[in-house]
Amino acid sequence: MLDAGKYDGALGVIAGILAAEHFARAKAELPLGLDILAFGDEEGSRFPATLTSSSACVGAFERDALTTVDRAGITFNQALRAYGKDPKDIPAAAYSAQEAAGYIELHIEQGPVLEANEAPLGIVTGIVGQARLSVTVTGEAGHAGTVPMNLRRDPYAGAAEMALALEKIAREHPEDGMVGTVGRVETEPGAVNIIPGRVRFTVDLRSLTDALREQATERFAAEADRIARARGLKIAIESFHEIATAHCAPALQEALAASIAELGHKPIRLPSGAGHDAQVMARLCPSAMLFVRCRGGVSHNPAEFTSVADMGAAIAALIRFIEKFRPS
Amino acid sequence: MLDAGKYDGALGVIAGILAAEHFARAKAELPLGLDILAFGDEEGSRFPATLTSSSACVGAFERDALTTVDRAGITFNQALRAYGKDPKDIPAAAYSAQEAAGYIELHIEQGPVLEANEAPLGIVTGIVGQARLSVTVTGEAGHAGTVPMNLRRDPYAGAAEMALALEKIAREHPEDGMVGTVGRVETEPGAVNIIPGRVRFTVDLRSLTDALREQATERFAAEADRIARARGLKIAIESFHEIATAHCAPALQEALAASIAELGHKPIRLPSGAGHDAQVMARLCPSAMLFVRCRGGVSHNPAEFTSVADMGAAIAALIRFIEKFRPS
Repeated sequence: MLDAGKYDGALGVIAGILAAEHFARAKAELPLGLDILAFGDEEGSRFPATLTSSSACVGAFERDALTTVDRAGITFNQALRAYGKDPKDIPAAAYSAQEAAGYIELHIEQGPVLEANEAPLGIVTGIVGQARLSVTVTGEAGHAGTVPMNLRRDPYAGAAEMALALEKIAREHPEDGMVGTVGRVETEPGAVNIIPGRVRFTVDLRSLTDALREQATERFAAEADRIARARGLKIAIESFHEIATAHCAPALQEALAASIAELGHKPIRLPSGAGHDAQVMARLCPSAMLFVRCRGGVSHNPAEFTSVADMGAAIAALIRFIEKFRPS
Repeated sequence: MLDAGKYDGALGVIAGILAAEHFARAKAELPLGLDILAFGDEEGSRFPATLTSSSACVGAFERDALTTVDRAGITFNQALRAYGKDPKDIPAAAYSAQEAAGYIELHIEQGPVLEANEAPLGIVTGIVGQARLSVTVTGEAGHAGTVPMNLRRDPYAGAAEMALALEKIAREHPEDGMVGTVGRVETEPGAVNIIPGRVRFTVDLRSLTDALREQATERFAAEADRIARARGLKIAIESFHEIATAHCAPALQEALAASIAELGHKPIRLPSGAGHDAQVMARLCPSAMLFVRCRGGVSHNPAEFTSVADMGAAIAALIRFIEKFRPS
């Protein structure tokens, strides 16, 4: 991706290789084998399918992904073959539960929490569940000059109220990492001098606790319905994506916290608001994530930045974590 | 325009011709000459220039319009020549003030007021002034999952508050035909899982009293500024169109009201929220507008509809108005 950053994803792979190099150089005797995994396209940047590599590792690859098509018209299947791989071999890529004692993923935070806490490293408590909604509010289009305010059924005024209701609901559970976002808004017809007839907007709602996320989604729907009724508008809410929270293994969180503390850093615990391959790997084995501070919380952008010092601290913590790791 | 209606504009021209035909058939002796004017593209549908024909009639044609270009790349100048006209002749199209005793424009209401009053005809008190603003709210883009609510500077949440502030301000002067509309909204980058970094929206604010419109515009700007400051957002408000109210001549309003009452209809007075050529003609001579009820207030749409009965009443009122017209 032309507009991506250098650290998102790549840092975790290189950190794993550097940790393995450390053990190889030290001729360390580890009690377990160490596999370094480099997953492809977790984001779904090229193909409209996410987390496909990690899904293959846990035996949950969805074959529908093979027929998805990139912008150039190439299927996932064709791309795999061009890379010298055979889709028939995907099932054999899966680990068995017996083989996998634990999984750790090192990743930039992609958020501002560590920076705000002046801490280079963080322990992820879980990867938040998500609900994504598409909301359509229908009113009555009209000439912006000729329809008196009291005769309007303006869907955008309703949509604005709904966005503020979402913000209010999402603000109630900061301890649970709850966030709510309206990212895309479209007014139809979208002209300066026409009262819109229809407004569509998206809602992205996340929380570390599935029940809280579900409650918040229901409350938003009820509030939106109340607002629509009060304004004589119609509303349709479609849920187009829902994923449950993946909790990080408590024992591995403790081990990470100890490693970070030994290095003299504050062991900050925080949820991951972004999706990661760890959420898939957690289905296979106890999983953990180590977050590294990044500047301004910026990612998915060439301005993405993590300092050499913070990356060094992260790799040191990763090495300590692996050294002390014992299967439970 | 493929998506226009059949009555907006065209009805007024045909009504004028039918009224003239009535006087010709009746061999009526009018005390003044009667010109039927058919103005081109008042809306600026083809070229990005509005009210050009009426501007030519009052000697205020702006020559910059000649270089504007339609979607096919044809200039206004080329289109005029292809129609057999020479732009050099435009100044000669102007009436002198001595020649013009009065102007009347018959038009569908394009709003729901006459329908709500169960009246076929209305007397326009004035054509409301307009202010159009382009508002840009800048915050900080971020990942919808990773930025806690209390660390956000979300420009869309601010823009939503501003839209509701506009609605509240515009509702305060229904007696003055005040209306406020947010017609176009764009979030950047506009993805479901990204907190927008920037939001642009338009404001259209109209009122029959210039001072009230100016006050409302200032109050909106002050409210938007307060909202932006409270949320750590930047705001830029650009005024890209402002036009003063054009008042209809009181004596002509009285004459229209009398004609309507003689036909047995209620003489409803209402401002015109839409722009019309009458607002330009009012610079030349006493001007009036007769509104005709249209279904649901719908216009600029193939569903635009005015009944034959209402059109008949309008033409009858127009004929009575012309019969009784005496220059002041």
